[in-house]
Amino acid sequence: MTKKICVLPGDGIGPEITAEAVKVLQALNLGLEMEEGLLGGCAVDATGNPYPEATQKLAQEADAVLLGAVGGPKWDNLPREQRPERGLLGIRKQLGLFANLRPAILYPELANASTLKPEVVAGLDILIVRELTGDIYFGQPRGIEVRDVDGQQQRFGFNTMHYTESEIRRIGRVAFEAARKRNKKLCSVDKMNVLETTQLWRDVMNELAPEYPDVELTHMLVDNAAMQLVKAPKQFDVMVTGNMFGDILSDEASMLTGSIGMLPSASLDANNKGLYEPSHGSAPDIAGKGVANPLATILSAAMMLRYTFNLEEAALTVENAVKRVLAQGYRTGDIYETGTKRVGTREMGDAVLAAL
Amino acid sequence: MTKKICVLPGDGIGPEITAEAVKVLQALNLGLEMEEGLLGGCAVDATGNPYPEATQKLAQEADAVLLGAVGGPKWDNLPREQRPERGLLGIRKQLGLFANLRPAILYPELANASTLKPEVVAGLDILIVRELTGDIYFGQPRGIEVRDVDGQQQRFGFNTMHYTESEIRRIGRVAFEAARKRNKKLCSVDKMNVLETTQLWRDVMNELAPEYPDVELTHMLVDNAAMQLVKAPKQFDVMVTGNMFGDILSDEASMLTGSIGMLPSASLDANNKGLYEPSHGSAPDIAGKGVANPLATILSAAMMLRYTFNLEEAALTVENAVKRVLAQGYRTGDIYETGTKRVGTREMGDAVLAAL
Ligand SMILES: CC(C)[C@H](C(=O)O)[C@@H](O)C(=O)O
Ligand SMILES: CC(C)[C@H](C(=O)O)[C@@H](O)C(=O)O
Repeated sequence: MTKKICVLPGDGIGPEITAEAVKVLQALNLGLEMEEGLLGGCAVDATGNPYPEATQKLAQEADAVLLGAVGGPKWDNLPREQRPERGLLGIRKQLGLFANLRPAILYPELANASTLKPEVVAGLDILIVRELTGDIYFGQPRGIEVRDVDGQQQRFGFNTMHYTESEIRRIGRVAFEAARKRNKKLCSVDKMNVLETTQLWRDVMNELAPEYPDVELTHMLVDNAAMQLVKAPKQFDVMVTGNMFGDILSDEASMLTGSIGMLPSASLDANNKGLYEPSHGSAPDIAGKGVANPLATILSAAMMLRYTFNLEEAALTVENAVKRVLAQGYRTGDIYETGTKRVGTREMGDAVLAAL
Repeated sequence: MTKKICVLPGDGIGPEITAEAVKVLQALNLGLEMEEGLLGGCAVDATGNPYPEATQKLAQEADAVLLGAVGGPKWDNLPREQRPERGLLGIRKQLGLFANLRPAILYPELANASTLKPEVVAGLDILIVRELTGDIYFGQPRGIEVRDVDGQQQRFGFNTMHYTESEIRRIGRVAFEAARKRNKKLCSVDKMNVLETTQLWRDVMNELAPEYPDVELTHMLVDNAAMQLVKAPKQFDVMVTGNMFGDILSDEASMLTGSIGMLPSASLDANNKGLYEPSHGSAPDIAGKGVANPLATILSAAMMLRYTFNLEEAALTVENAVKRVLAQGYRTGDIYETGTKRVGTREMGDAVLAAL
C-alpha cells in the first residue's frame, strides 16, 4: 500500500515550516510519497482560486494532507471567494474533515512562556474536539442584502447556525472515543439556554453517553467555558463543541500554554483521512526570515502518522525527538529564554532529525 | 423629578447582594424611590412566568432596574419558556437595552486573585461593549424540527444570526463615545472572514470611524481576540462586539481579573434607562449563607447613578467607598487571602456604608 501525502506549504512561514516536517517524514523511511500543491494566497496569485482544481485533485487522491498555513495582509482586500481562508474552508468541506482535534499541551520546559501562573497551567494537557464542517460556518441562507427593516431600507447581514442530529452524533463519537483513550472525562460545550441548535447538541451528547459508560460526560455553557479555561484549565481532559465555539475556545486554550508555536492539529474525515496543520497562523511578519518555529508542523506530521497511517510507533518517535530537542535547550525565537540555545527554522528541523 | 428604581433581587445570592446595594443607595439620600419585583426562578415559582406582567409594568415605569442574579439548578429542567434566563432575555428585549457595558478592572489590592501573572494583568482596565438585543440571541427563524436531511428523517436544530446596519451603528456609537471618554482606543471584534453578518459589522464600524477622528479604531477576529485577552490583555481599552461573541469574551475578560465578584455591568437603552447587575451569577451553592460578595452589585448601583441619573459625584462616592473598604482589608470569601479581614455579605455592605 502506498501512502500518498499532499503537501500544501501555503503562505507566509508555511513553506519554511512544512519543509522541516517533510524532512522529518522522509528521514523515517516509511515509503511516503509526497506531492506539493497550492492552497491559499499563493494559489490565488497563481490561478485566481484559493483552492484550485489541481490541488483539489491532489488532495482527493492523497491519503493525507500536510498544510503549512494560509493567509496574509496581501490578500485581505480580495473579494470573499478569493480570500486564502476560503481555500481552507473549501478543502475542509470537500474532504469531509468534520473532526478537528486540537491538543493544548504545556511542555514542562516551556512553562515560563505562559502568561498564567505556573501552578495553574503546569502539566496542562487538554484535547479540544471541534466539529469542522457544519454550524454557522457553512449554514445557508447567508449573506448581506438591502431589506426593509423598521420602515427603513438598510443593509441586513444574516447567517444560519444549524446541526443535524447525525452530524452531532458523529463528532460526539470521536470525542467519546478520544476521552476513552485519555482520562475519560468529556466536557461538551454549548449555549443551550439561548440556542436551540445547541440544545439539540446537548440532547444528542446525552443520548450517546450510555454507550460510553467509562467516560464521564459533563456539559458547560460556552461563556462559562471561556471563564473556566482561564480560572482552572486543568479541570478539563477532552472538550467537544461546534465549529464556531470551537474556533474561539481552541484558540483561547492554545494561548494558555504561551507556546502556540508548539501546537499541532488534525482534521479527520470518517475514514481517518486527514489534514494536518499547526494551530498557529502564517505569521507574515516573520515569513522568509528562517526564524519560524517548525515544531507544531513536525508534531502535526506525527499526528498524521498516528491517525491516518496508524503508525503509532513512528508518531512517538517524532514526538519524543521533539521532547529531546526541547530538553537539549534548542529554541526558536518565539519560545526563547535566557540560558537556552536560539536556533532558526532549519537548525530546529535538523535538531529533530538528529534526535529521531 | 422622582427617580424610580425597580429592584429585582432574583434567585440564589441575588436577594442578599441587592439588599446591600439598596442600603448604600438609600444612605446617599438622593430621593430614590424603590420598588421590588420578581424575575427569574422566583418569578416562575410564584407565577409560572420568569418575567411576570407585574414585573413588566414595574420595569417599564421605572427609570432604572437593579437586578441581583437569576437562575439555579432548581429550574434547569423546566421547558424553555419558563427558564429563569428567559426572564432576563425578556426584560432586555422589552426595554430595548441594547448596550451592555462590562468593565473588567483589576483592583490593585486583589492582584493575587488573578490566575495570570501579575505583570500581565497589573492595572488591567478594559471596557467591553456588547450588543444585547440582537444577533443570534433573538434571530428568527429558530428551533428544533424533524426534517429530511441526507435522505434521513432526523432532528435539525437551527438559529439565525443577523444584524441590520442601524443596530450596528447605534452600538458602535456607544462604543466610540465610551472610548472617547477613556484611552481613545476601540477594538471591534468580528469573524468577517467567515460570517457575512460580521462583515457588515466591520463595514459599519469603519463607516462610523470618520465621525470619531480622536478614537483609534482597530478590528480583530474573535478567535484572535480570545487569544489576545490571555496573551496581552492590557493592549485593550474598549472592545465592541455582537451579542454572542460579547457573551463569551466578556466572561473571559472578567475572569482575567480573578475577582468576578467585583465586576458590575450596565445594560442601557437609547435614553440611558438601564438595567444594572453584577457580572457574576446567582451562585446557588452559597445562597442564603450570608457570605456572597455584594461589591459587584454595589458598583452596579454606582453605574446606575452615573449612566441613568447622571449623578457622577454620587457614583464616584460609592466607587471610592468600595476602594476604601478594599484598602482597609475587608474581604468576602471569594477574594479573601491571608492577612485580610474576612467578612460576610452584610458586614461588607456596612463597611461600604461607613466609608461613604
Ligand atoms: C482561517 C479561518 C477560516 C479558520 C477558522 O475560523 O476555522 C481558522 O481560524 C482556524 O481556526 O482554522
Ligand atoms: C443567562 C444568559 C442568557 C446570559 C446571556 O447569555 O446573555 C448571561 O450569560 C449573560 O451574559 O448575561
